[in-house]
Amino acid sequence: MKPSQRLYVQAELTAEGEIALDAGQTHYLAHVLRLGVGAEILLFNGRDGEWQARLTQIGKKTAIAQCDRLLRPQPAMVKLELWFAPIKGDRTDMIVEKATELGVARICPVVSDRTIVRKLNLERLRARAAEAAEQCGTLNVPEIHEPISLFDRLDRLAAGQVVLFADEAGEAVPVAQALTDRPSGLALLTGPEGGFTPSERTRLRAHPHVRAVHLGPRILRADTATFAGLALIQSLWGDWS
Amino acid sequence: MKPSQRLYVQAELTAEGEIALDAGQTHYLAHVLRLGVGAEILLFNGRDGEWQARLTQIGKKTAIAQCDRLLRPQPAMVKLELWFAPIKGDRTDMIVEKATELGVARICPVVSDRTIVRKLNLERLRARAAEAAEQCGTLNVPEIHEPISLFDRLDRLAAGQVVLFADEAGEAVPVAQALTDRPSGLALLTGPEGGFTPSERTRLRAHPHVRAVHLGPRILRADTATFAGLALIQSLWGDWS
Repeated sequence: MKPSQRLYVQAELTAEGEIALDAGQTHYLAHVLRLGVGAEILLFNGRDGEWQARLTQIGKKTAIAQCDRLLRPQPAMVKLELWFAPIKGDRTDMIVEKATELGVARICPVVSDRTIVRKLNLERLRARAAEAAEQCGTLNVPEIHEPISLFDRLDRLAAGQVVLFADEAGEAVPVAQALTDRPSGLALLTGPEGGFTPSERTRLRAHPHVRAVHLGPRILRADTATFAGLALIQSLWGDWS
Repeated sequence: MKPSQRLYVQAELTAEGEIALDAGQTHYLAHVLRLGVGAEILLFNGRDGEWQARLTQIGKKTAIAQCDRLLRPQPAMVKLELWFAPIKGDRTDMIVEKATELGVARICPVVSDRTIVRKLNLERLRARAAEAAEQCGTLNVPEIHEPISLFDRLDRLAAGQVVLFADEAGEAVPVAQALTDRPSGLALLTGPEGGFTPSERTRLRAHPHVRAVHLGPRILRADTATFAGLALIQSLWGDWS
C-alpha cells in the first residue's frame, strides 16, 4: 500500500538520498501521526517527482527520511500563470491555495492603480502553496513572484503567451471563445476590488496579446473571478480533459 | 445617475411602498455612508426586481425608504442548485458567498456519512448570501435550506432535474460531456473533506438521474470543487454565454 502522508521538501530527491525534515514536519510525523523509525512517507519537491521514503531517525527537532524509490516522475506542468492584484486579509491566501489546487504554474501578484495591498508575506504564501500541494496530490508547487506593476509584468510576456483579462466593465467574450486557437502559454489576469481604471482597461485592450473575457452577468469578487477563470481555463485548455 | 448603494430587504416592494430598514442598514447608511433624508438608494428582495428608493426618515434604530420606480424587473433564475456537505469553519460561509455570486438558486446542505459539520447557523448564512447579492449586482438571493441527509435530498429530486456528482475517486467524465443534452434543472453535488464512502458512491452512481463528473487530475478541497464545478456549469449550461 502506498503511504498516505505526503511532504513537500526543498532538497534534491535521489535514490538513497537522505533528507532532513524540519521541526514542523518532524513534530507532525512523530507526535500527531505518531510514526516511528521505519515508517514510510512520500516526498516531493516540485522538481524530482514523488518518492517513497522511510524514516531512519527521529530526533527532537529534526527527522531523517531516506528515499527508497521513485513512484511518479515529475509531470510536465501546464503553462498557466495567474496574474492577480493582491486583496485584503485571508483572501490572498485563499487565492494561492486555490491556484495551487487548480494547477497554476506561476503566481504573479501585480500592482494596478486601485491595488491597495502592495506588500505580501511571500514566505507565508509559499508555505500555503506547499501545504495545498501536499493535500491535493499534485507534484507541482507554483512559483510565487514578488509583486510588480501590471504593465511591467506585461512587458515581460513570454513568446507565445496570451493574457486573458477578466474585464467586468465592458464588451468581452466568454473564455471558450477566447481560446479557440490554443495558445502555447496563458495567464489569467484579475483585478483588485474596484476593478481596473478606464485607462488601464484601454491600455490592456490595445495590447496585441491580451484578450478581454467575461465571467458571466454578475460582478464577481476578485477572489471568485480567479477561481472561476482558472477552472474554465483548465477545463478548456489545460489538463482537465 | 443610478444610486450605487444596494440593499436587500425582506419586505414586498411596490410603487410608493414604504420600507422600514433595520438597525444595521440604518447605521450603515446614516453613519458610514453619511446619507441624509432625500438620498437615493436601491432596494431588492429577490422577488420584486430592483427599485430606486428615497430615504424619507432616518431615526436612531430604523430608517424609512420609499420606492420611487422599478429599475429592473426580477429576472428568471437559472435552475441551478448546490448540494454540498458542510465543512468546518469559515469555508461553509465562503461556499455560500461564492454560490450566490455564481448564480445558484438554491443551496441545499446535505449530510453524508463522513460529514462532520451537521448543524449550521442558517441565519448567519442567509445574511452572508444577502450581502454577497448586494455586492455582486444580482437580484436573486439563493434560498438556503436546512441540512438533510443526502439520500433524502435525492428522493426529492424535481422532475427533469439532473445531479452532477463531483466524484474524485473513480471513472467520471468532464462536466461538458455530462451536459450534452441540456437538462431542465441541475444540482451540483460535492462531498465533505474525505469524500463520499464507497457505498454512497455506488448508490449515487446507480441512480438514473445522477451523473459522475470529474474536476481535473488533482484532488480538490471541498470548497474548491464547489467553486470550480459551479463556474463550469454556468459557462456550459447556465447564464454565462
